[in-house]
Amino acid sequence: MEQKVMNQPIISALEKFTELDEKISHFNSISGLLSWDQKVIAPKKGRPIFAKASSTLRTEAFKLSVSEGMGELLSTLSSPEAEAYLDEAAKAKVRERLNFYNRSKSIPAEMIKEFSVLTSQANDAWEEARENNDFQHYLPYLERIVDFKRKSVEIYGYENHPYDALLDEYEPGLTVEKLDPLFDKLRKSSTNLLKRIQNATYEPRVDIFEQAFSVAKQKEFNRYILPLIGFDMNAGRLDETVHPFAQTVNTGDVRITTRYLENNVRSAIFGTIHEAGHGIYEQNIDQQFEDSVLQEGASFGIHESQSRFLENMVGRSEEFWKHFYPKLQEHYPEQLGNVGLDEFYRAVNSVQPSFIRVEADELTYNLHIMVRYEIEKALIAGEIEAKDLPAIWNSKMNEYLGVTPSNDSEGVLQDIHWSFGGFGYFPSYSLGNLYAAQILNKIKADIPEFYGSIEKGDFAVIQKWLKENIHQYGMLYTPNELIVKATGEELNADYLVEYLEEKYSKVYKL
Amino acid sequence: MEQKVMNQPIISALEKFTELDEKISHFNSISGLLSWDQKVIAPKKGRPIFAKASSTLRTEAFKLSVSEGMGELLSTLSSPEAEAYLDEAAKAKVRERLNFYNRSKSIPAEMIKEFSVLTSQANDAWEEARENNDFQHYLPYLERIVDFKRKSVEIYGYENHPYDALLDEYEPGLTVEKLDPLFDKLRKSSTNLLKRIQNATYEPRVDIFEQAFSVAKQKEFNRYILPLIGFDMNAGRLDETVHPFAQTVNTGDVRITTRYLENNVRSAIFGTIHEAGHGIYEQNIDQQFEDSVLQEGASFGIHESQSRFLENMVGRSEEFWKHFYPKLQEHYPEQLGNVGLDEFYRAVNSVQPSFIRVEADELTYNLHIMVRYEIEKALIAGEIEAKDLPAIWNSKMNEYLGVTPSNDSEGVLQDIHWSFGGFGYFPSYSLGNLYAAQILNKIKADIPEFYGSIEKGDFAVIQKWLKENIHQYGMLYTPNELIVKATGEELNADYLVEYLEEKYSKVYKL
Repeated sequence: MEQKVMNQPIISALEKFTELDEKISHFNSISGLLSWDQKVIAPKKGRPIFAKASSTLRTEAFKLSVSEGMGELLSTLSSPEAEAYLDEAAKAKVRERLNFYNRSKSIPAEMIKEFSVLTSQANDAWEEARENNDFQHYLPYLERIVDFKRKSVEIYGYENHPYDALLDEYEPGLTVEKLDPLFDKLRKSSTNLLKRIQNATYEPRVDIFEQAFSVAKQKEFNRYILPLIGFDMNAGRLDETVHPFAQTVNTGDVRITTRYLENNVRSAIFGTIHEAGHGIYEQNIDQQFEDSVLQEGASFGIHESQSRFLENMVGRSEEFWKHFYPKLQEHYPEQLGNVGLDEFYRAVNSVQPSFIRVEADELTYNLHIMVRYEIEKALIAGEIEAKDLPAIWNSKMNEYLGVTPSNDSEGVLQDIHWSFGGFGYFPSYSLGNLYAAQILNKIKADIPEFYGSIEKGDFAVIQKWLKENIHQYGMLYTPNELIVKATGEELNADYLVEYLEEKYSKVYKL
Repeated sequence: MEQKVMNQPIISALEKFTELDEKISHFNSISGLLSWDQKVIAPKKGRPIFAKASSTLRTEAFKLSVSEGMGELLSTLSSPEAEAYLDEAAKAKVRERLNFYNRSKSIPAEMIKEFSVLTSQANDAWEEARENNDFQHYLPYLERIVDFKRKSVEIYGYENHPYDALLDEYEPGLTVEKLDPLFDKLRKSSTNLLKRIQNATYEPRVDIFEQAFSVAKQKEFNRYILPLIGFDMNAGRLDETVHPFAQTVNTGDVRITTRYLENNVRSAIFGTIHEAGHGIYEQNIDQQFEDSVLQEGASFGIHESQSRFLENMVGRSEEFWKHFYPKLQEHYPEQLGNVGLDEFYRAVNSVQPSFIRVEADELTYNLHIMVRYEIEKALIAGEIEAKDLPAIWNSKMNEYLGVTPSNDSEGVLQDIHWSFGGFGYFPSYSLGNLYAAQILNKIKADIPEFYGSIEKGDFAVIQKWLKENIHQYGMLYTPNELIVKATGEELNADYLVEYLEEKYSKVYKL
């Protein structure tokens, strides 16, 4: 038999690559901690000063990621000869670093610099425009951002639709061709369901939330449920910020935030469960991926699936409240003592079309995303122009949600995303819901006592399933590989459509 | 007239040096934040994982500090031709970076690596030895550490005494020749004063502290006084740790910690004032030194002078308590309602020789330092050996403080410093007291209403003096230059000797 000769240059490249990948990952892990610190606890006067130091570190990590040395290592390690020397994890690391390298190197440095100045100005202009309800003030910046994005997708390249190049940044491998039929089905069934809900005779008693709920008790209740639903308090923190978020430092240090509003008890509860979903995901990534590019969740969409699954499929289920409602009532005997479980469950699942995405319910949220997805796609393809957005926005809102914003501030100007050039980001939210429903379908098949466990307050069996089938893999698989591996099929909109149909038929007694 | 030709290589070196210095300073500022985070708030499971990431950053900063590139820049910029191109700050930056470069490069990398392994083992051995009162268990490690230190001072080089090379690390420019007469005078007068105090007929009522003081109220009181004495809460934080410390991120972000003990109300009050002294120093360094090696205090000794000045000269003065005691009594009417101001003031200044340095009062603290200084000096000079330390320690404790530890755990094993090789560090504490008293003398001359301001609770005039004469300069001047600039003379032990004499004559009615 022929003895295979070890290929020394490949072995040496792999060693150097692993070391470089680890260094970049360490710098990114530190940057994550710094970002959390400056948002959550740093004293006011230190923040502008510290911005320079953290920028130095981020720049260093970026430079290493696109360095000539990295380019050479990636070229060696992605060659066919290297195949046999790389295990699954090493291949995934090379895949992810190569993606970033190619994407970052494709745009000339001069263009990136200009764009960075532009988005900084655009963000200010957007803030002013929203405050003054003055879309025209923002328009010139938005036009230049769209122009940049149109140019950059031509540089990145794409097979069919120019928007594919942007989708790929947030959901690697996803294309308009794949996404259109999914979103079409979801949009049609959701608008239809919404109409039936609006015609329903039953209406949940949302007035029960129009009371003051002591913030101190909200904190107590949130800190009570957080570890019970699977968030490891020895591997994370819960703090307060105006805009809640999750930030990973490493698998033993995942920090989530929430906010407490006395006049909105739902905000903190479901916000905390949502961020816990993100956090539990990252706490359960296999430690073998620590110190590497694979130390994060698979994609924006998969990440969002975990937060939405926990917030909506688990946290808004009747069984969840069968378990936790008595405790909540104990905290608020005056406010909820006379409100039955059934009333409460229906109230937390009420549907009310509104202008503002971030305040939307589980059903109409996706319709907000459809408005944005369709606009982004047409903009990038050059089928519409930035100046047309207010009119198109309002018309789509009216068509899908049956409401027309009375001004641009509560319409086309409401989101920050476009001001930093985040085209391609919005679909992740609905992708999260689609993934989540498909996962729910599979988990119910694998664990027949799924809802029974929730009712008993036993989340361990569910978290075990999620860890084994999703969480542990980090970024080892692409999102498509991961969902196929976990559920046996590619992403399919039917599960979410059926889930919403079933849930709201029950809530609204349709 | 001759036109001076610009020396392009020097100008270019200065630019590169400034950039490199900024990068290293940014990395160090980040490392400071990371260290604070991991000690104070990071979740338990994340800490061992994060240690790798923060080590990567520290290593990177170290590598840049001793890189060939840095060496070349320093060589260019410290040449006589460069003199004319460097302003005062640039010269100071070159001085500091060169010191670090020379010190770090002098010891062979192999020796540093070995020493790092050794100190890690030595630390474990020291902990075990202290716990089991077993000096012999620690001895072999201590012997090797002393051996390393003896070798390294030979490599660093020194003019007169080998210990000078170690002093220089903590107090640049200080030598045994300068320090011996200062410490001799202090030791003699302190042992003499201590004997007179022990023979005094009056004794402060320290039993007033043997009561429970609610921790919640301690927190309230500490948070009340902290901003009043000059600590800017918008440029810093106060948190809790078992071992209090101060950590600077930048001038707008200085984080101090304290600890609250129900059975020891003095601990948090004076601990907080002490750390505030460190913190106020760093908050008031001129922003022009931000992002550079000069962004810190001038030396360990000067830093300690600021904490001791605020804790002892200000915080333990009668006028301080004339102002704050009524407030403290309001917090603790049961415990202090019947204790007069005079009794309280004398009680917080009571003297009681003990075995343990960190629990020592203002007078005997320096005697603890003398024991350590004399032992370190003789050890490094080869006049004594590590195995002799327990006997020497106990004999000196008896000679200076009149107490003999009953075992090594409360004697020679009490401090961590030697286990990490920190020879040369201890003198900083007493240097701090010497500097502080000399500063007090000058500030009283410049501000005749010094104590009157304290009594009125007006600390602004004092902090303004400290900022103008000490704080603003950061590391621009060497400690000796700074004390001469601030007080008009070199360090002189008379001021501390007189201060202690005067204070304790009053407290103990001598």
